[in-house]
Amino acid sequence: MPTLTATGPVHVLDFGADENRFAPPWLDEVHAHLDTVAAGKEPAALVTIGSGKYYSNGLDLDWLTSHPGDAGKYVAGIHDLFARVLALPVPTIAAVNGHAFGGGAMLAMAHDFRIMREDRGYFCFPEADLNLPFTPGMAALVQAKLTPAAAVASMTTGSRFGGPQAKALGLVDATAALDDLRTAAIDRVAPLAGKDRGTLGAIKSTMFGPALTALRETGN
Amino acid sequence: MPTLTATGPVHVLDFGADENRFAPPWLDEVHAHLDTVAAGKEPAALVTIGSGKYYSNGLDLDWLTSHPGDAGKYVAGIHDLFARVLALPVPTIAAVNGHAFGGGAMLAMAHDFRIMREDRGYFCFPEADLNLPFTPGMAALVQAKLTPAAAVASMTTGSRFGGPQAKALGLVDATAALDDLRTAAIDRVAPLAGKDRGTLGAIKSTMFGPALTALRETGN
Amino acid sequence: MPTLTATGPVHVLDFGADENRFAPPWLDEVHAHLDTVAAGKEPAALVTIGSGKYYSNGLDLDWLTSHPGDAGKYVAGIHDLFARVLALPVPTIAAVNGHAFGGGAMLAMAHDFRIMREDRGYFCFPEADLNLPFTPGMAALVQAKLTPAAAVASMTTGSRFGGPQAKALGLVDATAALDDLRTAAIDRVAPLAGKDRGTLGAIKSTMFGPALTALRETGN
Repeated sequence: MPTLTATGPVHVLDFGADENRFAPPWLDEVHAHLDTVAAGKEPAALVTIGSGKYYSNGLDLDWLTSHPGDAGKYVAGIHDLFARVLALPVPTIAAVNGHAFGGGAMLAMAHDFRIMREDRGYFCFPEADLNLPFTPGMAALVQAKLTPAAAVASMTTGSRFGGPQAKALGLVDATAALDDLRTAAIDRVAPLAGKDRGTLGAIKSTMFGPALTALRETGN
Repeated sequence: MPTLTATGPVHVLDFGADENRFAPPWLDEVHAHLDTVAAGKEPAALVTIGSGKYYSNGLDLDWLTSHPGDAGKYVAGIHDLFARVLALPVPTIAAVNGHAFGGGAMLAMAHDFRIMREDRGYFCFPEADLNLPFTPGMAALVQAKLTPAAAVASMTTGSRFGGPQAKALGLVDATAALDDLRTAAIDRVAPLAGKDRGTLGAIKSTMFGPALTALRETGN
Repeated sequence: MPTLTATGPVHVLDFGADENRFAPPWLDEVHAHLDTVAAGKEPAALVTIGSGKYYSNGLDLDWLTSHPGDAGKYVAGIHDLFARVLALPVPTIAAVNGHAFGGGAMLAMAHDFRIMREDRGYFCFPEADLNLPFTPGMAALVQAKLTPAAAVASMTTGSRFGGPQAKALGLVDATAALDDLRTAAIDRVAPLAGKDRGTLGAIKSTMFGPALTALRETGN
């Protein structure tokens, strides 16, 4: 399950050591940790990371299959999570320690910055191969963070991108050796930790207004 | 006139050996070939290319001048073509074998990807020099595929970009020697040919919703 | 105070030798010079530059503090200036000779192109550190000219970017030694000076329609 630790002002949210799919209890834990990060007035920033082979594989399709009556509410909750991270009032960075697929890749895109392990793991939007078109909110989120060329190359192809490829395309801002990944992520956001939450939240809410609206239309 | 051939699952639409301007009979042929590509359920992808010095020079100004009463309908039809290619439910790539000017350059932009001959030919939006401002649909199409800096540099200047310059600016994704151009284009989309048409069409329609709306407002 | 000189068809608007903040008399002078540039039919282009350590430090906070009752009208006027430069019917380039902060950096972004002194001076949006969130118009202006990654890196961090960093991120299109800056800026737009004003104004107004609307909603 997700755990939250602190390195100075930087909160490190470790999604866990397995596939870190969005099971409802996992989502509840993540939201509780985000409550902790977003509250208060002391300097803060957020790093998210996984501790195994996966950053996150996204939607919990097993849970979804076994709870067909709850699909609408479940998908709305995922959109709420994306919207929350997109406008989180502290600086955020995803440390992509391994595979980030589908909703897991979208969650990484919702952060301000992304840094990815350089030697293993894939960043991938498999929607085109799974016959699961992006919802308008999901598409708006990803497109709000990518150049048009990167959006086409990643969203229409189902291609898997290793760290250097993901960096070259702009899916991530930087790469690092696995041993350095957590520290590099912390170093990126620690100098930004002193921003006023109200100001930073307002800036992100204005910048990503259309994507937030599209996410919340599904999320509510 | 345009001809359609197949290399495995990849349909190659050759626009012809002349300027490949959008004369009404040429447009009818292109639409008929797109019908062929879009129909069915077998794997498919689309390469467009010309066989002479031109990819396409765009609007047929001679025809337009001699049919002044049909200008509105003609321009609407061009917008329809752009919208159709932009959301075509198979992977698409423009192999820019030579000059792509005005509407010809826009047609290339409507594809998922672009690869351009490296040594000759120009990619150019001459609208600023022809006193023909982009329609809202045309501007939305081009801007949906370019970074803001590339859009300004190409859409406000009338500048002509050779292959390497077009690649550096992001107007095209890659360049190739003329002898390799067709094969390189086929190789880019052949691995993507198995996508479900309904899914890929939905993904593109969502990603490019605002541009499609702007094109269809003129196109209908 | 701002002065306007000409090098062939290129008008060079020098903002002055001090911080070049947007004091009301300074704004009136700038608008009068823009009237000169925008009028007539002869070929024209615009370079803006400062002659001291600053390009512009943006809003005149001293004036604003001493005229609290005029804040709304003053901020509306700033938005009007940004909108005017964004859609100016001649080619425009900002020659960023030194510091460009806040509104000064936004004014630079409103130009078609930006070239920055390579060795000194910072390009910076300090809004996140000043607890002054971007207005919707300001955010729309900046985002209309940057990739999403560059917008996040500059608009949410308050970071200061020297010339080479600003070039790497895409905040500016090029850098030059200070001695060459003015000439390099003139050389970039002089070949574009012959565009028809009506056409170029229409192209920019269409391309930047949403940002212009957002600016003018505040500006009127």
